[in-house]
Amino acid sequence: MPSISRRGATMPESPIRKLVPFAEAAIKRGIKIIHLNIGQPDIKTPKIALDAVRNNTLEVLAYSRTEGAETYREKIAGYYAKNDIHVAADDIIVTTGGSEALFFSMGTIADTGDEIIIPEPFYANYNGFANETGIKVVPIVSHIEDNFALPPIEEFEKLITPRTKAILICNPGNPTGYLYSKEEIKKLASIVKKHNLFLVADEVYREFTYDNREHYSILQESGLAENAIIVDSVSKRYSMCGARIGYLVSKNKEVIQTALKFGQARLSPPTYAQIASEAALDTPQSYFDDVKKEYEERRNILISELSEIKGAVVARPQGAFYCIVELPIENADTFAKWLLEDFNLDGETVMVAPAAGFYATEGLGTNQIRIAYVLEKEELKRAVHILKEALKVYAN
Amino acid sequence: MPSISRRGATMPESPIRKLVPFAEAAIKRGIKIIHLNIGQPDIKTPKIALDAVRNNTLEVLAYSRTEGAETYREKIAGYYAKNDIHVAADDIIVTTGGSEALFFSMGTIADTGDEIIIPEPFYANYNGFANETGIKVVPIVSHIEDNFALPPIEEFEKLITPRTKAILICNPGNPTGYLYSKEEIKKLASIVKKHNLFLVADEVYREFTYDNREHYSILQESGLAENAIIVDSVSKRYSMCGARIGYLVSKNKEVIQTALKFGQARLSPPTYAQIASEAALDTPQSYFDDVKKEYEERRNILISELSEIKGAVVARPQGAFYCIVELPIENADTFAKWLLEDFNLDGETVMVAPAAGFYATEGLGTNQIRIAYVLEKEELKRAVHILKEALKVYAN
Repeated sequence: MPSISRRGATMPESPIRKLVPFAEAAIKRGIKIIHLNIGQPDIKTPKIALDAVRNNTLEVLAYSRTEGAETYREKIAGYYAKNDIHVAADDIIVTTGGSEALFFSMGTIADTGDEIIIPEPFYANYNGFANETGIKVVPIVSHIEDNFALPPIEEFEKLITPRTKAILICNPGNPTGYLYSKEEIKKLASIVKKHNLFLVADEVYREFTYDNREHYSILQESGLAENAIIVDSVSKRYSMCGARIGYLVSKNKEVIQTALKFGQARLSPPTYAQIASEAALDTPQSYFDDVKKEYEERRNILISELSEIKGAVVARPQGAFYCIVELPIENADTFAKWLLEDFNLDGETVMVAPAAGFYATEGLGTNQIRIAYVLEKEELKRAVHILKEALKVYAN
Repeated sequence: MPSISRRGATMPESPIRKLVPFAEAAIKRGIKIIHLNIGQPDIKTPKIALDAVRNNTLEVLAYSRTEGAETYREKIAGYYAKNDIHVAADDIIVTTGGSEALFFSMGTIADTGDEIIIPEPFYANYNGFANETGIKVVPIVSHIEDNFALPPIEEFEKLITPRTKAILICNPGNPTGYLYSKEEIKKLASIVKKHNLFLVADEVYREFTYDNREHYSILQESGLAENAIIVDSVSKRYSMCGARIGYLVSKNKEVIQTALKFGQARLSPPTYAQIASEAALDTPQSYFDDVKKEYEERRNILISELSEIKGAVVARPQGAFYCIVELPIENADTFAKWLLEDFNLDGETVMVAPAAGFYATEGLGTNQIRIAYVLEKEELKRAVHILKEALKVYAN
């Protein structure tokens, strides 16, 4: 029997997926599960996007251009301009989800054995793409006590080696909800310029900022044009996770030309999804205002409910829709499994994502969980109540 | 300014795309171009697939399962059973195009520096995925004089090293149109079993076989279950290139579990495209009969017209919709450019794909072109006529 590759053997399993068999078993036993573990919003997709696909008159579902449809890329440039990010259509490659934009970015800037510094905890799939491309993720710890703020620049400098090619951030952060300040972005800009590195920013949660705070993009920072690569996605912005449309954006022509060759290998991004995503750009502002208000209220409820849990440390998210909580337990993996296997409150339990999978450093985050607040307020309240009661039982 | 990776610098440019700027310049000069260069069929997508998307009632365009929707995978297993390929839904991963199935396959079975033997000429994007994953493509020459039949098994054995992980074939072949016989598949089966290799078969053109010949799949060959990986796609079968849906199929559980981890990193295949593709499985047999008849007639016209070109060698395709032709010229790259830059017949010219890009061995195929017969018969005739007249002018 032929054997699989080392690369295949070391591909990380998603920390969210590992618990799925336990959840399925619980459902079979008749337990209702409230999902706090996955960032699939319950928010409706804008009707204008859904209708564009329903009303399409295609007779041949043909390839689109490798870089995405011309009209769509022009409109995306307009979207960025409204966000004070000034790019041309030719600075944008439409990708199959933000996932592919990440993969293209990594492949474009780093070879096998090269290093990318990423503040941890970070979006777990960064590990997957790094593993696929043989790139070494060099984590730099951010702390729950600081709300996961940017680690001191001296700490970054200590980690830079001749093989360091880039710093990768997620802003606002998944799983931390941390929103980097303008000053923090400026600090990152100065370090990548000093050391001739790329700064890759996953800005897929750009619109989701709370407490009247504004997002500051790496492409708003002047002088960073050659270093900056934005990874973007329609998934959360328009609640269109199933479209699988993202963008890679850079003013660095060599980056775009190279990423385009990765794009050519896979021919084109999906056509129907581009129709939906192009139409989504005409979504009225009121949709975003409503969604943002909803998420901010959910966050407020979540934080207030969580802070009542004795011994819990809660990072206050200022963006995205995730929150890391440190619980008065030893091992969140064991606890999350226990919630599914051995606990229920009136037939209901909760599914959470153990946070260790979001850290690259072994042993970190073992008593933390990530919560996605993508549920209606009443259900969210009930979920935290179940979690609270579960912790009481678990302590004994 | 930070520099891009070696991987990025060495990503091959698609042999089809290289000529695009010359084509765009020709169009600006008012020249009409007939495209013989790209496998985008003009055949209509089955209405049943298009309607399924038009009539969808989704309110939230959510992620699908990483491995594809359950109902869809069950139906795909049914499609294979009808083709005498007996697999379960769990042996199938729905991918974002056949492209992603190829990428997952390569990543699953080979590490950086490992080798995959591929009969050349081959689908040019195999080079792209090999480059992304650091895998070395080891070409084994097949010859136009033999219609691109399987090279002798002794030639394969000469190329096998401790780093050889797989043999990859495309059956029926792009760009050759060659359909491997049952005996050829049996020969390949015995060599991969003897040397403990994977046999990866890109069978996306399975239905397109002519002269009453039947396709023999690697998964029809008994005893090959642990070695065989099929790469498949809806793109050509239903003229749905823009869907971006494919499958990776294997009875080897370790392969499926590993490929699934690659799938988890990118979350899920596109949702709309799965709706279309699931519905496409109900396309009536008459659609395929008509399409196959149409392609066979086109092939016959093409071969008969091409064989009138003095000094041309034409491989007779028995499947797919491509054909390699050796022309009485020195360099097909120069000729293809010249066709776009300096030639027209009553305001029309043709765009062809120089075949050298489909070979890995430097210097092979330089006087060959690939023609995709995805045009209506009258236009195809006119295109070959233009080519014929162009060659007369070019000879002087």
